[in-house]
Amino acid sequence: METEKSKVEEKLPDKTKHMSEWYDRVLLEAGIIDIRYGVKGFIVYMPYGMMIMKNIIKLYEEELEATGHKPVLFPVVIPEENLKKEAEHITGFESEVFWITHAGKNKLEERLALRPTSETAMYPIYSLWLTSYKDLPFKAYQTVAVYRYETKATRPLLRGREFLWIEAHDVFRTKEEAIRQTLEDKEIFYKVTYEKLGIPFIHVKREEFDKFPGAEDTYAFDTLLPDGKVLQIGTTHYLGQKFSRVFDVKFHDIDGSYKYGEQTCYGIGLSRILASILLIHGDSYGLILPFEIAPIQIVIIPIYKKDYDNEKINRYAREIEEILGEKYRVKLDLSEKTPGEKFYEYDLLGVPYRIEIGKKEVENNVVTIFRRDIRERKTVQLSQLTQYIEITKKEIVEVLRRRAEERLKNSYKGIENLDDLKKHSEEGYSLFEADFCDSEECADELKSITGGFEVRGIFLDKKVEEGSKCIMCGGPAKSRVLIAKAY
Amino acid sequence: METEKSKVEEKLPDKTKHMSEWYDRVLLEAGIIDIRYGVKGFIVYMPYGMMIMKNIIKLYEEELEATGHKPVLFPVVIPEENLKKEAEHITGFESEVFWITHAGKNKLEERLALRPTSETAMYPIYSLWLTSYKDLPFKAYQTVAVYRYETKATRPLLRGREFLWIEAHDVFRTKEEAIRQTLEDKEIFYKVTYEKLGIPFIHVKREEFDKFPGAEDTYAFDTLLPDGKVLQIGTTHYLGQKFSRVFDVKFHDIDGSYKYGEQTCYGIGLSRILASILLIHGDSYGLILPFEIAPIQIVIIPIYKKDYDNEKINRYAREIEEILGEKYRVKLDLSEKTPGEKFYEYDLLGVPYRIEIGKKEVENNVVTIFRRDIRERKTVQLSQLTQYIEITKKEIVEVLRRRAEERLKNSYKGIENLDDLKKHSEEGYSLFEADFCDSEECADELKSITGGFEVRGIFLDKKVEEGSKCIMCGGPAKSRVLIAKAY
Repeated sequence: METEKSKVEEKLPDKTKHMSEWYDRVLLEAGIIDIRYGVKGFIVYMPYGMMIMKNIIKLYEEELEATGHKPVLFPVVIPEENLKKEAEHITGFESEVFWITHAGKNKLEERLALRPTSETAMYPIYSLWLTSYKDLPFKAYQTVAVYRYETKATRPLLRGREFLWIEAHDVFRTKEEAIRQTLEDKEIFYKVTYEKLGIPFIHVKREEFDKFPGAEDTYAFDTLLPDGKVLQIGTTHYLGQKFSRVFDVKFHDIDGSYKYGEQTCYGIGLSRILASILLIHGDSYGLILPFEIAPIQIVIIPIYKKDYDNEKINRYAREIEEILGEKYRVKLDLSEKTPGEKFYEYDLLGVPYRIEIGKKEVENNVVTIFRRDIRERKTVQLSQLTQYIEITKKEIVEVLRRRAEERLKNSYKGIENLDDLKKHSEEGYSLFEADFCDSEECADELKSITGGFEVRGIFLDKKVEEGSKCIMCGGPAKSRVLIAKAY
Repeated sequence: METEKSKVEEKLPDKTKHMSEWYDRVLLEAGIIDIRYGVKGFIVYMPYGMMIMKNIIKLYEEELEATGHKPVLFPVVIPEENLKKEAEHITGFESEVFWITHAGKNKLEERLALRPTSETAMYPIYSLWLTSYKDLPFKAYQTVAVYRYETKATRPLLRGREFLWIEAHDVFRTKEEAIRQTLEDKEIFYKVTYEKLGIPFIHVKREEFDKFPGAEDTYAFDTLLPDGKVLQIGTTHYLGQKFSRVFDVKFHDIDGSYKYGEQTCYGIGLSRILASILLIHGDSYGLILPFEIAPIQIVIIPIYKKDYDNEKINRYAREIEEILGEKYRVKLDLSEKTPGEKFYEYDLLGVPYRIEIGKKEVENNVVTIFRRDIRERKTVQLSQLTQYIEITKKEIVEVLRRRAEERLKNSYKGIENLDDLKKHSEEGYSLFEADFCDSEECADELKSITGGFEVRGIFLDKKVEEGSKCIMCGGPAKSRVLIAKAY
């Protein structure tokens, strides 16, 4: 991998203007994923990318467990008969399913689907597990890959045929509890995605015609990428009793009656969240990683000097490595590369702190510490170093979040007609809010006339004014909606 | 799940005499896995089982990372062309592969295999990543499910068509380093499986005819189950240059020449390790879990008394929950079940410590603490409680390991002929050591004559004596081998 890294010295292109080029180079040069596996839509997580991914997964799993979710693991295969039981669900997924038809030299009696999502794998078993109101609420999640035969162009991490997600599937006694869960799901998403990863998102209710196949209601979390397109990074669905009736997920209630469970499911799009972190926080030097998920949180680089006892520098560097290594993921780079090469490399990898140790630092018992997010050097007393990191490590994600949020806000414009849309999008706006009649026809027409702008969903906290008209047909408006181009 | 648990009150059968019955009941009643998914060989990990599994995974991953392995993740699908490149490998696996042939309504141009193991997925990409001796050693692992169309009878966790493992795939400059890695793999296995999980194992070199398809040498870790059969729970393979030549994993060496990498791979059988922990440590009350992997490490149970202010008991119990909760995974069970029902339940779940809080404990500021492994109650001062747990928690796995090791030793017998085998196996021995000529014919004959005894492999630290004869053909013996029935 040495040869790839030397390319870094060409500074990366501006990611706002050339997002694709920036992205492709960073993915390979920082060792995130490799797209050369040879099967369309299937990628390889390289070591550095997988380390980041594991840290991201940990944050979401902790939050799910703190809210009463338990881990489970269901098979990757789903019998064709199960997948087909819920009519809307199979209609939505049938064109996207990979089928296993043979094993060894035998043809299977029944085809097996690779899970595109796990409702039809899980709920037949839930029906065996849940028999009494005492078993409820039942909240479970699994962190797995899912498989969808995408016919649209695939893009690494953004749209793949195999992608990683966490899916939570919950069952409740009452509708109220189920609805409350969709709000808790949003809260979990907020705590991790926004607070810990610094990724702002817009929460909307998808239009009827745009719901998850089989859901009563779908709520989605969209984020904004630097090229002005939005990306769905999570969804939560209120399923009501649609699946519980089909799969017989019923329970003996307090009053002795049998009732069908009220269900929700929740998808956290891990691959896309990783992509968002790279694309939204990165700059022309490479990645910028929030402290909590950085595989290397602090790198220590010795700066040797002619006519100096450089072993002193190494000793001092090792001492710092040991002190910081107790609390943080630290790397001391004693390789033969020049300090300049190392600076480039760890900038590219998005390492939050770089500590430079030279003669001056050794003799004064200080360190020079560089923060990747704001690109500022500071001299800190060795005795104050841990404290300095403890205080400033939280600032990093705040800086990243503030930047991202500002870009999102500055991209946002209310519009009253398509001329507004055209004008403002030429000015650089990319997220639009408008009155809408909620019809699929109008949404389709909008997309075709504007070359790709989509109705992304309804703002739940905004009402249309009396007498408002749909931006497309001029008929009575029902909702304030988000309009944007999307991945 | 309430209804299942009430069955616990029937004590479980003796697991040595009725292992299958014991196992099936514990799997379901303790909520480890569910075998009712409906596709042969595919199981569902239930919440409690998955929590244990995640704790097991963490231990191995930590050890792998401490020895320089980095996480990666390769696709579950392998193009048919890749899978077929190494001739011995495909011959070994072709009868066991699940094939994806269709997606949506389309027939795929090339069939895709579900990974039965990942050499042929990984090494084509390794050949892109590794170009210089500076990239070596390269050590990577992934924790995934693999898929094998087993034609033998499947048994939950013991033999499935989908099972969990960790596979590590390493590349080195020299043969010496690769061989050294197979020893490090053994060391990793020892540190986790033996030291932390209390599972003893026998390390043998598999016979030539019993190697991993495509390997130069295969070393295996077998453990002994209560029914006297052995179970392979891990393997490490020296691959030499067999795969690197096929997949072009070569590098520019220090002297400027191109060389093929020397490879090893390593499989840690997670599903089987979980099964071994359940089967080897459990007793007629249920599971006994080592402290480190127990999802609930300590359960607190209030014992109410008539004519007493039982809120005092609850307050005291909550205080203890809070103190212990800072360091351990603690559950305070305030449900309405009787203490007796709770004792049964947490015995079944294998919770290492049970703390009982009644009037006596409240008034004397003590706790009554019960250790699941030795079934002993003790009174401990509240102020000494954490210290008591810190000291004794390590003893638990030592007790479990000692018991398991004793059973293994007591099952072991050297033999000189088949009459010995027959006699000693009737006496209850199940692991035999004998001189052997290393031929496949003799191994096959042994198995067929004895109704299932297999040559499991060669003891590396034992030499045959001059003039020794093969236990089967009487020809010159080459090795001391392990003979046992196996899963």
